[in-house]
Amino acid sequence: MAKKLAYLGPAGTFTEEAALRYEPQMVRIPFTTISAVGNAVISGITDEGVVPIENSLEGSVNDTLDLLIRESKLQIRQELVLPIEHYLLTKEHAQLAEIAVIYSHPQALAQCRLFLEGNFPKAQMVAAHSTAMAVEEMKTSPVPAAAVATRRASELYGATIMAKGIQDSLSNVTRFAILSLTDHPRTGQDKTSLCFSFQEDLPGQLYGVMGEFAQRGINMAKVESRPTKEILGRYTFLVDVEGHREDPILNGALLMVGRRVSTLRIFGSYPAYSTKSLEPKPS
Amino acid sequence: MAKKLAYLGPAGTFTEEAALRYEPQMVRIPFTTISAVGNAVISGITDEGVVPIENSLEGSVNDTLDLLIRESKLQIRQELVLPIEHYLLTKEHAQLAEIAVIYSHPQALAQCRLFLEGNFPKAQMVAAHSTAMAVEEMKTSPVPAAAVATRRASELYGATIMAKGIQDSLSNVTRFAILSLTDHPRTGQDKTSLCFSFQEDLPGQLYGVMGEFAQRGINMAKVESRPTKEILGRYTFLVDVEGHREDPILNGALLMVGRRVSTLRIFGSYPAYSTKSLEPKPS
Repeated sequence: MAKKLAYLGPAGTFTEEAALRYEPQMVRIPFTTISAVGNAVISGITDEGVVPIENSLEGSVNDTLDLLIRESKLQIRQELVLPIEHYLLTKEHAQLAEIAVIYSHPQALAQCRLFLEGNFPKAQMVAAHSTAMAVEEMKTSPVPAAAVATRRASELYGATIMAKGIQDSLSNVTRFAILSLTDHPRTGQDKTSLCFSFQEDLPGQLYGVMGEFAQRGINMAKVESRPTKEILGRYTFLVDVEGHREDPILNGALLMVGRRVSTLRIFGSYPAYSTKSLEPKPS
Repeated sequence: MAKKLAYLGPAGTFTEEAALRYEPQMVRIPFTTISAVGNAVISGITDEGVVPIENSLEGSVNDTLDLLIRESKLQIRQELVLPIEHYLLTKEHAQLAEIAVIYSHPQALAQCRLFLEGNFPKAQMVAAHSTAMAVEEMKTSPVPAAAVATRRASELYGATIMAKGIQDSLSNVTRFAILSLTDHPRTGQDKTSLCFSFQEDLPGQLYGVMGEFAQRGINMAKVESRPTKEILGRYTFLVDVEGHREDPILNGALLMVGRRVSTLRIFGSYPAYSTKSLEPKPS
């Protein structure tokens, strides 16, 4: 039986593109929220799930970070980096000069602002729940309309591509996490994601934890903080470090970190993304 | 002439409540985006501006962090913490049992989810641009509707309060920053906010910077990272530390930090918020 992969839907979004690139032969099942993708994996409805975790312009996807902090069964098994390319889609035979409304997800509209303001100074920008839903709204719009969405959405919804690569910045890439109940075996080129928090707010605690990594020469690729949702000013810290949790040096550091914090959760070890992953898989 | 205070509008939002509490005698001018509030202060259209910077449940307000990183003229002059209390508002003589649609900002709907699902399991939740605009949409709704908004919105828009304090969590507070062209003189109970970044990604750099504070016994209240928007995995770090930038010990630390980073920007020093600020000012 083919394995199942939950993803943040609907079909035609960038997360579906990531799912396609990850394992084209898996059965892809869309879910409407990041939490629902996590629940699908935890409950066994699907074998794995894919969610966005970070964008090079917008920063972290907080819903994904909060899901990982909350759900102790979820592990990151893989990461995947995808360039975000926006397309301007219309109905067949649309006249660009007549476009009065442009639909998309607010982030996509923001990422194409220069292009849209330059070419459609009078058009109204309308927010949609996803880039895919923007295409549906464009297709049923009573006035001449366009949508900003993925190339795949143009195929799925039968829309015409009027322009491609309309995003303002070329450095727009999104990192996706593959969620599973187990993380990845050692490969020698790994990364480990974890979070920790402190019972009390004492000077130097965070510095002490970082020292356990720094003094062992372990590079920290990322530091984030999320509110604990208890009181203002108390945080859960999220860290990505180089190495696998089974590597002896990192393993030793994690043991010592565990003694310095009140909660420690390892989200998993997985192969560090390299630019190689950007090349499309044969599908 | 009365001083002017820009705020993230429209009237009736929590930011207006913060503006009222900060200096009731200032002339309040609403702006539609956080960037526009910043520009009003930089250009001298207003003397100061107020924007949300952090919520105890949602975390940092990224638009505000990015504004501070980008606009080197802006300084934080004050911080203010406000409990977030949501109200259920309707038209006069509305029947709760008939409510079919509930309007609000998506964050407000999320923060009242248990109350809304428990009391209105069949109502449709509709997203609005702000809690204030939700009240306007509720008032013109063709079907029986309610809005989740502030107490002040009920006065401004003439809506009826059906329930108060409907948020799920009692620990829902938002921190606001007062933006100005100058920061605050020393008070002895101060905080300093700053950001820094590195030219290259070398192991131990962030740890080295944190050591300049930790080794001088300076407590770090907060650490955040924001993407530099150049390449994935390169960050600007934002830190809040105890003390005023003119305090000799912190001043020494900042000089040493400046040598370890490629860019350093001090957002300003200002009195550290205390629970006293939660008591309403006489207006």
